[in-house]
Amino acid sequence: MSRIDGRTPDQLRPVSIERGWSKHAEGSVLVSFGDTRVLCTASFTEGVPRWRKGSGEGWVTAEYAMLPRATNTRGDRESVRGKIGGRTHEISRLIGRSLRAVVDTRALGENTVVLDCDVLQADGGTRTAAITGAYVALADAVRWAQGKKLVKAGRVPLRDTVSAVSVGIVDSVPYLDLRYEEDVRAETDMNVVRTGDGRFVEVQGTAEAAPFDRAELDALLDLASAGCADLAALQREALEG
Amino acid sequence: MSRIDGRTPDQLRPVSIERGWSKHAEGSVLVSFGDTRVLCTASFTEGVPRWRKGSGEGWVTAEYAMLPRATNTRGDRESVRGKIGGRTHEISRLIGRSLRAVVDTRALGENTVVLDCDVLQADGGTRTAAITGAYVALADAVRWAQGKKLVKAGRVPLRDTVSAVSVGIVDSVPYLDLRYEEDVRAETDMNVVRTGDGRFVEVQGTAEAAPFDRAELDALLDLASAGCADLAALQREALEG
Amino acid sequence: MSRIDGRTPDQLRPVSIERGWSKHAEGSVLVSFGDTRVLCTASFTEGVPRWRKGSGEGWVTAEYAMLPRATNTRGDRESVRGKIGGRTHEISRLIGRSLRAVVDTRALGENTVVLDCDVLQADGGTRTAAITGAYVALADAVRWAQGKKLVKAGRVPLRDTVSAVSVGIVDSVPYLDLRYEEDVRAETDMNVVRTGDGRFVEVQGTAEAAPFDRAELDALLDLASAGCADLAALQREALEG
Amino acid sequence: MSRIDGRTPDQLRPVSIERGWSKHAEGSVLVSFGDTRVLCTASFTEGVPRWRKGSGEGWVTAEYAMLPRATNTRGDRESVRGKIGGRTHEISRLIGRSLRAVVDTRALGENTVVLDCDVLQADGGTRTAAITGAYVALADAVRWAQGKKLVKAGRVPLRDTVSAVSVGIVDSVPYLDLRYEEDVRAETDMNVVRTGDGRFVEVQGTAEAAPFDRAELDALLDLASAGCADLAALQREALEG
Amino acid sequence: MSRIDGRTPDQLRPVSIERGWSKHAEGSVLVSFGDTRVLCTASFTEGVPRWRKGSGEGWVTAEYAMLPRATNTRGDRESVRGKIGGRTHEISRLIGRSLRAVVDTRALGENTVVLDCDVLQADGGTRTAAITGAYVALADAVRWAQGKKLVKAGRVPLRDTVSAVSVGIVDSVPYLDLRYEEDVRAETDMNVVRTGDGRFVEVQGTAEAAPFDRAELDALLDLASAGCADLAALQREALEG
Amino acid sequence: MSRIDGRTPDQLRPVSIERGWSKHAEGSVLVSFGDTRVLCTASFTEGVPRWRKGSGEGWVTAEYAMLPRATNTRGDRESVRGKIGGRTHEISRLIGRSLRAVVDTRALGENTVVLDCDVLQADGGTRTAAITGAYVALADAVRWAQGKKLVKAGRVPLRDTVSAVSVGIVDSVPYLDLRYEEDVRAETDMNVVRTGDGRFVEVQGTAEAAPFDRAELDALLDLASAGCADLAALQREALEG
Repeated sequence: MSRIDGRTPDQLRPVSIERGWSKHAEGSVLVSFGDTRVLCTASFTEGVPRWRKGSGEGWVTAEYAMLPRATNTRGDRESVRGKIGGRTHEISRLIGRSLRAVVDTRALGENTVVLDCDVLQADGGTRTAAITGAYVALADAVRWAQGKKLVKAGRVPLRDTVSAVSVGIVDSVPYLDLRYEEDVRAETDMNVVRTGDGRFVEVQGTAEAAPFDRAELDALLDLASAGCADLAALQREALEG
Repeated sequence: MSRIDGRTPDQLRPVSIERGWSKHAEGSVLVSFGDTRVLCTASFTEGVPRWRKGSGEGWVTAEYAMLPRATNTRGDRESVRGKIGGRTHEISRLIGRSLRAVVDTRALGENTVVLDCDVLQADGGTRTAAITGAYVALADAVRWAQGKKLVKAGRVPLRDTVSAVSVGIVDSVPYLDLRYEEDVRAETDMNVVRTGDGRFVEVQGTAEAAPFDRAELDALLDLASAGCADLAALQREALEG
Repeated sequence: MSRIDGRTPDQLRPVSIERGWSKHAEGSVLVSFGDTRVLCTASFTEGVPRWRKGSGEGWVTAEYAMLPRATNTRGDRESVRGKIGGRTHEISRLIGRSLRAVVDTRALGENTVVLDCDVLQADGGTRTAAITGAYVALADAVRWAQGKKLVKAGRVPLRDTVSAVSVGIVDSVPYLDLRYEEDVRAETDMNVVRTGDGRFVEVQGTAEAAPFDRAELDALLDLASAGCADLAALQREALEG
Repeated sequence: MSRIDGRTPDQLRPVSIERGWSKHAEGSVLVSFGDTRVLCTASFTEGVPRWRKGSGEGWVTAEYAMLPRATNTRGDRESVRGKIGGRTHEISRLIGRSLRAVVDTRALGENTVVLDCDVLQADGGTRTAAITGAYVALADAVRWAQGKKLVKAGRVPLRDTVSAVSVGIVDSVPYLDLRYEEDVRAETDMNVVRTGDGRFVEVQGTAEAAPFDRAELDALLDLASAGCADLAALQREALEG
Repeated sequence: MSRIDGRTPDQLRPVSIERGWSKHAEGSVLVSFGDTRVLCTASFTEGVPRWRKGSGEGWVTAEYAMLPRATNTRGDRESVRGKIGGRTHEISRLIGRSLRAVVDTRALGENTVVLDCDVLQADGGTRTAAITGAYVALADAVRWAQGKKLVKAGRVPLRDTVSAVSVGIVDSVPYLDLRYEEDVRAETDMNVVRTGDGRFVEVQGTAEAAPFDRAELDALLDLASAGCADLAALQREALEG
Repeated sequence: MSRIDGRTPDQLRPVSIERGWSKHAEGSVLVSFGDTRVLCTASFTEGVPRWRKGSGEGWVTAEYAMLPRATNTRGDRESVRGKIGGRTHEISRLIGRSLRAVVDTRALGENTVVLDCDVLQADGGTRTAAITGAYVALADAVRWAQGKKLVKAGRVPLRDTVSAVSVGIVDSVPYLDLRYEEDVRAETDMNVVRTGDGRFVEVQGTAEAAPFDRAELDALLDLASAGCADLAALQREALEG
């Protein structure tokens, strides 16, 4: 029962995390999960949005987008259509929440980090690659800010690491890290976001073709937990590199 | 350890499902989960969107919105702002997916049902009330269509019922069917959508204040499963009434 | 010469004015003119828009909208289309002007009341029902503010009541309070807004099928004046109830 | 009791109707009511909007706009703001309805006329000048179409002329054809649209500062009727010139 | 080799520059290049946009637009479409840059001038007519401000005049000041903006049908230089008149 | 007189043209002019827009955009703002015109190529890098189509190559291929687009700080011509590689 690219069901695609991809951003990462390639930049600015001023707390937010030809068929630009689609909104919100789950906004101080995750090439799992890469870009931006003394000495703005992976049931078999062709065929599809210490930040399971039972859900959670742990190790390695 | 309204942790709020609320729609339900009140209408039309023509399959979609003063503080209208917010998009998509999970689009034939879920008053759980009520409105619209012979005889467009409930961990205790004040205080918050036969359609868990471990996740899933089963019974009762 | 619902030409439909329909709004009314049902909420907030600051005067404004399936055929949401249509704009402006005609903005002080009139079900006369109901919601919000001492003691922010009704010429006969089917057939159609003391706030007459002469105009004004007086009595009754 | 420009209360401003102002449009008029100057063009095209195809009937519609510096203070362009304001919508709809009231759409055949009324300079009464000028532009476009045999021989697409004027009560005196400064001070303000044979097409009276009684309404209607009759004579003169 | 209107290749169309066309604007000009007619208004206001506050420098910007029936075929309004097209954006930016090239923003002080260039009738060369006319409107607005002491005594906010003309190669012959029919047939088309002292502000050459060589480019620049000099003389004459 | 990066005034930055960067697009190039990095994809589809159907001619168009953190300071996304800015519009149009100048649309047949030029990192000259890279992507897409027999045998859809470069006067010295810091300081700034055979497609010169005379214009054109010739050689080399 081999997968289209020869992987075992519980195997990640080759992952690469290339730091310092952009010369302008305070943190930047080109992350690849196989052929899925996402450019993640972290823009650090002093100050916070108006509604947060004077709170002593920082703010972290994210925006996700796809280049028009990141996919097999060209999609219209959302800027040309004049509005952001539901899927884009949903993923941007997911990335923001996922990262905020490991940020100590008080330790960050009244500073803002915006994470831009632009999909240069898509082959399934763009949102999970984006979260995994954005964490590393965020960590670099925080280090940069510490170097510039924009974060108070002794403060630790990041409580833990965070990574994400997709899992799904394809032809009744639970698979880790779906490629696009697998994703399309999946009966059930789940994105899981976990912290480095193994707790859940987000669990989003959707029955695409058929509702799933508790046993299937448990199998998917097990698979995703192992995948996230592997990704967390790769993140630490990249940051130490 | 009593809740603000005296419920036990595993107790639903009083639920009412009032059918036939609107004289124009083919199916319409005013659903209440406590003080949360959502008007769900099902609009049945012959024909499908262009991209589905000739497929022999129908289409079911949903739109969710809140009246500006459904909440404690008045919100700007999305029509006035000129765009739909991310939250609205996300919930509309969730409702649509949840209902499509029990629809046999081939049995529906080339017909379209649009489910409009407008929150008249909000007190937590608006999306889960919307799904629960929309199912009943959809069932009524399908019956109407069967009466009009718009669905072929012998076809069963609805494979099962579907209902939804929110669960969350408040002060370390798992609670069923959160009110707004509980939701705001929840460390973790999950929406679960289940079919009448007890399988999952959607599981969306989010760590609001602190990541959650597998045991907590399991407790929430148990609580939600029981709540969805109760709601399924109330749906059946309403449809038989 | 009986009307479709058996009314005489000068008879209103059954009118109901249900106060306190929403738990959040400072004033809220579910008003019905027959099958036309409009939820009117009055949101009272301290402060005024920037252009009015320091004037010592308050501000009252209104927004009107229809739920997509309030009508016989589902209409697209204005939020989805990304803009507000001309009809919606026009009616929102009419409601706002009508209520401001009886508001003493100086007595109101630098406070704002927004009236949201959302049509839950439409059967003709939605704008006149909205004005009639919004007045009652506004009166309740003003009372609430007086109770909270947000309006100075001894000040009377409402100079009079205000109500509205539609009239039209159908098959050469002037009719009061048109239902949708009558409205569609009307040669001429007029909306009249009057104060409790019997003066006009707005008179908007439109030749739909044929221009009208002075005698017809006079007949419609007489009919509307009587209808508005009846509605004013029902408003007073509701507020005393 | 003289007016700022020395007119008597029942006197129109100097009116000019300059035909053939644009070389491209099938009908075009630069109309002036005193310093109010509106360029009205009538664009005649064969065919009708999709919803009217096959009906045998034509369509007439109007769009009104103001140049940004038509007024004393520069206004933002609606194209730059990305949406049309309520006032613009309302006036465009009024102009369209007013002209359709004298159009025999069956005689027009499946042709469309769009009337563009662009205010080059504003000094009160822009909508009434627009209607009065647009009628003449429409008449020229219809003649042009008759010359081209685009309208069937023997058909009379225009049943009558139509003109419009504003009236208002300023310091308790009813005035005809208000200038901007008078309009601002008016307690009540009314726009009246009449056919050449003296019947009403639109009556839109609004209490700006104080509700008005039936006697005041009657006085305003008398004044407007005389003004519209004078304008109708000027229209005929212009079309014969 | 005569042109459609009998001009020689190096001849301008009849140009007229009518000052004081609008009673509201601080400067206003109706400029005609043959049948191309553009209304240019200059709106002078004290203060500058936020990003320029405290700089001691003024700001000059421009907005260009066409009335819907300025052209042979009616175009949709950009306000109705809800967005500004690329061509409009491009020309607005060109006009603004061209005028700023002769403005001493320090001498202007913290004041803003907005130039609105609305094409009432188009027959080629609308952007060059707009620049030429807008300069005169700007000069009038600056004089007005000097009269009101809004510009410091002794300061000269305008360093020079600026004018613009189009040139193009039609049937291999370089032509000055193209009419619409010539523009459509041109192989190459260039807009040149020059100061009164004969230097270039903008040179925008575009190969419409065939790339052009250096000799052709030189011929077009010579032709445009002479044309701009003639226009500069007409501007000075208009301002002295 | 050395430049910030040690180049001579007439020297290009290191240029790289990396073909086949994306697995989905029919042609794709990552082009770098120094630190400026633009991803150009060419999407080939059969068929043409409606207005061109049946003409026997193809269509080539372009869209340009910048990632939010391509620049030193993060810019808002145009999709979030809901509209495309003037600069984006202008550059997209320039790229499209430049490429169409070398396309034989008849030889292309009724096919469409969309060129997406997304700036991943900006350091001056993004539009010229985009044109230079897009040409290579277009050439690859045409080859792909020829391989698939989507272009008729024997037809040559590309008449020539096309490349572009920026030039400018910095501290009175004409410089080739400006970096961002040079561009900001330039008195005059010009973008030149040339065909492989040395003719001009576009010449866009703008006086940023001071108008320029004919001698300066000539010097800039010489410099740009040499730069474009070098780029054309690099394009050929890349396509042969």
